Amino acid sequence: MSFTVTVRCARRAIGTRWLLVLVSLCVCVCVCRAASPQEEEDSAMENIVTEKRAEESHRQDSADLLIFILLLTLTILTIWLFKHRRFRFLHETGLAMIYGLLVGVVLRYGIHMPRDGTNVILNCNVNASPATVLINVSGKFYEYTLKRVITSNGNKVDDMSDNENEMLHKVTFDPEVFFNILLPPIIFHAGYSLKRRHFFRNMGSILAYAFLGTVISAFIIGLLMYGTVTLMKHVGHLAGEFFFTDCLFFGAIVSATDPVTVLAIFHELQVDADLYALLFGESVLNDAVAVVLSSSIVAYQPAGDNSHTFEGMALLKSFGMFLGVFSGSFSLGVATGIVTFTKLRDFQLLETALFFLMSWSTFLLAEACGFTGVVAVLFCGITQAHYTFNNLSPESQDRTKQLFELLNFLAENFIFSYMGLTLFTFHNHVFNPMFIVGAFLAVFLGRAANIYPLSLLLNLGRRHKIRSNFQHMMMFAGLRGAMTFALSIRDTATYARQMMFSTTLLIVFFTVWICGGGTTQMLSCQRIRVGVDSDQDNSVSDRGPERRSTKQESAWLFRIWYNFDHNYLKPILTHSGPPLTATLPPCCGPLARFLTSPQAYENEGQLKDDDSDLILTDDINLAYGDITVNTDASGVHTSSAGFASGMMSDDLDRELAYGDNEVVMRGTRLYYIFDMHAEDA
Amino acid sequence: MSFTVTVRCARRAIGTRWLLVLVSLCVCVCVCRAASPQEEEDSAMENIVTEKRAEESHRQDSADLLIFILLLTLTILTIWLFKHRRFRFLHETGLAMIYGLLVGVVLRYGIHMPRDGTNVILNCNVNASPATVLINVSGKFYEYTLKRVITSNGNKVDDMSDNENEMLHKVTFDPEVFFNILLPPIIFHAGYSLKRRHFFRNMGSILAYAFLGTVISAFIIGLLMYGTVTLMKHVGHLAGEFFFTDCLFFGAIVSATDPVTVLAIFHELQVDADLYALLFGESVLNDAVAVVLSSSIVAYQPAGDNSHTFEGMALLKSFGMFLGVFSGSFSLGVATGIVTFTKLRDFQLLETALFFLMSWSTFLLAEACGFTGVVAVLFCGITQAHYTFNNLSPESQDRTKQLFELLNFLAENFIFSYMGLTLFTFHNHVFNPMFIVGAFLAVFLGRAANIYPLSLLLNLGRRHKIRSNFQHMMMFAGLRGAMTFALSIRDTATYARQMMFSTTLLIVFFTVWICGGGTTQMLSCQRIRVGVDSDQDNSVSDRGPERRSTKQESAWLFRIWYNFDHNYLKPILTHSGPPLTATLPPCCGPLARFLTSPQAYENEGQLKDDDSDLILTDDINLAYGDITVNTDASGVHTSSAGFASGMMSDDLDRELAYGDNEVVMRGTRLYYIFDMHAEDA
Repeated sequence: MSFTVTVRCARRAIGTRWLLVLVSLCVCVCVCRAASPQEEEDSAMENIVTEKRAEESHRQDSADLLIFILLLTLTILTIWLFKHRRFRFLHETGLAMIYGLLVGVVLRYGIHMPRDGTNVILNCNVNASPATVLINVSGKFYEYTLKRVITSNGNKVDDMSDNENEMLHKVTFDPEVFFNILLPPIIFHAGYSLKRRHFFRNMGSILAYAFLGTVISAFIIGLLMYGTVTLMKHVGHLAGEFFFTDCLFFGAIVSATDPVTVLAIFHELQVDADLYALLFGESVLNDAVAVVLSSSIVAYQPAGDNSHTFEGMALLKSFGMFLGVFSGSFSLGVATGIVTFTKLRDFQLLETALFFLMSWSTFLLAEACGFTGVVAVLFCGITQAHYTFNNLSPESQDRTKQLFELLNFLAENFIFSYMGLTLFTFHNHVFNPMFIVGAFLAVFLGRAANIYPLSLLLNLGRRHKIRSNFQHMMMFAGLRGAMTFALSIRDTATYARQMMFSTTLLIVFFTVWICGGGTTQMLSCQRIRVGVDSDQDNSVSDRGPERRSTKQESAWLFRIWYNFDHNYLKPILTHSGPPLTATLPPCCGPLARFLTSPQAYENEGQLKDDDSDLILTDDINLAYGDITVNTDASGVHTSSAGFASGMMSDDLDRELAYGDNEVVMRGTRLYYIFDMHAEDA
Repeated sequence: MSFTVTVRCARRAIGTRWLLVLVSLCVCVCVCRAASPQEEEDSAMENIVTEKRAEESHRQDSADLLIFILLLTLTILTIWLFKHRRFRFLHETGLAMIYGLLVGVVLRYGIHMPRDGTNVILNCNVNASPATVLINVSGKFYEYTLKRVITSNGNKVDDMSDNENEMLHKVTFDPEVFFNILLPPIIFHAGYSLKRRHFFRNMGSILAYAFLGTVISAFIIGLLMYGTVTLMKHVGHLAGEFFFTDCLFFGAIVSATDPVTVLAIFHELQVDADLYALLFGESVLNDAVAVVLSSSIVAYQPAGDNSHTFEGMALLKSFGMFLGVFSGSFSLGVATGIVTFTKLRDFQLLETALFFLMSWSTFLLAEACGFTGVVAVLFCGITQAHYTFNNLSPESQDRTKQLFELLNFLAENFIFSYMGLTLFTFHNHVFNPMFIVGAFLAVFLGRAANIYPLSLLLNLGRRHKIRSNFQHMMMFAGLRGAMTFALSIRDTATYARQMMFSTTLLIVFFTVWICGGGTTQMLSCQRIRVGVDSDQDNSVSDRGPERRSTKQESAWLFRIWYNFDHNYLKPILTHSGPPLTATLPPCCGPLARFLTSPQAYENEGQLKDDDSDLILTDDINLAYGDITVNTDASGVHTSSAGFASGMMSDDLDRELAYGDNEVVMRGTRLYYIFDMHAEDA
């Protein structure tokens, strides 16, 4: 025993040594980067110079990326130390932001490097702005591609070339990188991990918070910000234009919550599973709502006549666009998710690769169609967790989980460390104290207007009421994170957008550090039960009295969907479930036989021998053995037949009870997988 | 039994249905992509137009990427069908090329879309070619970044805008993508999987083939091509300049072998392990040699005075550069590999993430320092497999293997399908029949000049001779692949480079399809033993008579390195091995105590109780239990003490025998991992 302690001490010592080495390495790279030689120009050997410059630029890019990699490495090592010492006040994302901030300070104030004078301004008389320009420089043609538009007043251009340090410019990524590379794996992972029993139990409430709540929050924040901006205009604190649509846009982007910090602590402390499901489900879905909401507002904005004022018609148009893009992305995501029923069980590498590619192609397909890739990827993730996951071999189930877990971890920490960095390196910050105070207040009130009234309404229909301490916790856990940042950095061209971006950054910092860090205090303050064993909870729900409540609890809409899913979708899309020949009306016999996988018959054949009274225990035993195939088949066999032959009330009841149990089982299994790995997250 | 057959049939039917759907989807996307609406310009609403154009361009990019994703998906599904039916004539890479070719044909001939007229030529009087240009278009500033230089003659520019279809232009990736994104995971994976017993046994031969052989091959091919080119100049078949350095460059890039197809079949058929090790080891290392060789030739090439002729001095300079870059990359790779001794065993996600990041930072660090990232990554992979792998938790060992396996699979298939595509979409192909015939002949002779003379020399010193049928097989397995392609596409500016690129493409196609497809025939023709059980081979080597041979077999250089590694490096860098206090001289006591991990003492403590005669059996038992820690410690304990106290000949002998056995065990374990997954590869 004392030996392991020694080992730990030695490891700790090594850990801290490492941190020192890495910090110094990080600083070294920064300094070296700045000191790297700038090539002198020589007009005689242009070709060589161009080649050398390309090489030099490649080396600098590598060094820039290296800074971020080292930052992430540093974050990982520090998190490890924290986890080792069970230090819960600072989550990895908060830490990543702090390291980002530090590197940002070094880059901004530690290194002074004048911008080289290669920025040539050409005054050309073309009345268009082509995507590609060929410039004839003394006989040679150089192809240039359009990078960005710089705002029209001439001062700005000079400002930029004077103040903006070449290096700061370099460490600034194209904002689209966040949207097209870093966000998709995060969102997909969220969708892919959503498949838990408590999520389905609380589906109605989660949908209400995520859809209705986010829209309410966006409008409340938008209106409050419009008030603030009008006040600022009166006082004279506003240096540029700020339209009502800008306020609405701000409301939309700031309404996407991301309580990753809070959820990590919830998981560690085993907080009530319903609360966890409510928070997690809401945060996953409201990201999608916020993306589509903000993009519909933007799509309306440049309407040609420059009337950024409130219009009933335009609102309707935006709403229509919202519905269109959302349902398009949703159906695309679900469709691709459903199509990916991988049947390559014998070749795990192929299976995993195919799974990964199909998920990615959902994103690309949605983007190519003009929908929102992120939303499509989210619903693709949810569908794949619900259907495709059952078709995967056990190795691939682990592999895909681990792969997306890793991608999620890397992308998330990268975004948060970039957030920290950008506070100092972004060159167009507009910090307006009045706007910031207004925004904090509006965010607080917007969250309150989402949680409390909706909880009141939902409690009217819920059997398990959402207690007031849960409501306070949800209110408190309204952190803002990666999605808010990605949406706000996407366009920082105008004064209004710059002010929004700076304010958003502060909101993210504040909520992640203060609200995230205070989670344990808040939990004990609100007297929320911790250490709840989710399994114990499960076994209780198998008992008789709970059965009825399961039925009561599920909304009628959910029940209809559930039956449809269980009797038709699952048999068609997975190997599990009852054969379609049993669930479809007899007239569809040939179709049913065509669509049913032979394995489903196999399972049915096995079941015929069993006594249906034994199904429940049988179910549980099987659930821990070969979960994917047998559970469904056994849990459903009798009831589905009942369903097909007239849907008797009692049968439906049993079906739901078994069905829920099945969800429980699968939920539990997933929970174990989580349990093994989520600790690292 | 008959049931599984039915299932299989059903699956096959589904598989073929899928393929049809995917092919049509792929074509659909291509066509839709072409038909996507082109935005009309309107000078009044420029801002909106710019925004819309950016959006449109993003959508098109997504669609382009989607084509590749669908191609990969198609490849995976077809491979699955092939694997299912044990169809060995076509490897996945060959298949990826075929699909790429088909899509290339569709893009080239199926779709006619005129290039839109947005390509404006500005004639500006600047005598420099800046990296960024600000263009003042009626008051607004547009920032353009330099993309490429177009060759000086005015016709070319017109040619390009006329002939080159906008779409073909779009599906052409920046060549640096291959070098900086796709190649590193492939090369790292190769290095990371190199840790096998037979590799170390044949180390001397492998190094000879890879280093000496590749240089010989490059120079032979270079000289032969120079002859061909001189002949072409006389006959008048040469339309541009082609210098001697170009010939040498061609020799270097074409000398990188990539027998991935052959090795996959070797693995499946369980071909002799020594032959496998020779081929695999050579192909991994000669990639590194070829990269550095070609870049040293290029670095010498633009020497200002345009003398592309042969010079003794310049050759020496190139050689110096080769040594410098190679040793720099090598030491950087090894150093980073050694530094990554992950001690986060309790948190697998952090461990995997750290491992991934450190490997990537090796690449970036090397590139930032001006070395070759690919070479650094290769040696980083080898070192990590040798040291870091032992420190990882078993879960992370699996995770990292699987992660890099997946990345390797995706990157490799992407490169090969892009290769197929590029045969039709690349716009500057120069197919010269004479050059092509010359190149095929030169490649054949170059490979022969590598294998046969070196084998003759090596057989003088080897105990296990490399038989002539092995030599023929190695000759036959000299396929060219991803590395050759990436090196040749990197620079296609001049006529010579374009001709090289087109010829290289044909060489890759020919070798992958013909040589790759004919592997099984060649094996049976050369009467090479298949179905060799690697484990059986292992157990034999534990017997008495084999022990001596082990010693004889290992070269003296290898033995010295092995002892150093085992007694000093492994104890310092991993938890395994004997404690340093036992291996270092007594005067270094404090240092030894500081560097030794407590776990090593722990292992030693356990061993003191064991009878040293039992070590061998003990070793084997432990090897299958907790391999990383105990095997080394037990296998080495007595012998290392003997080594420290004067290195008796008998002790050294036993040490080597045990040591080899240890390599065997680890090799075997890896083999199992491979065995499980390599089937999919």
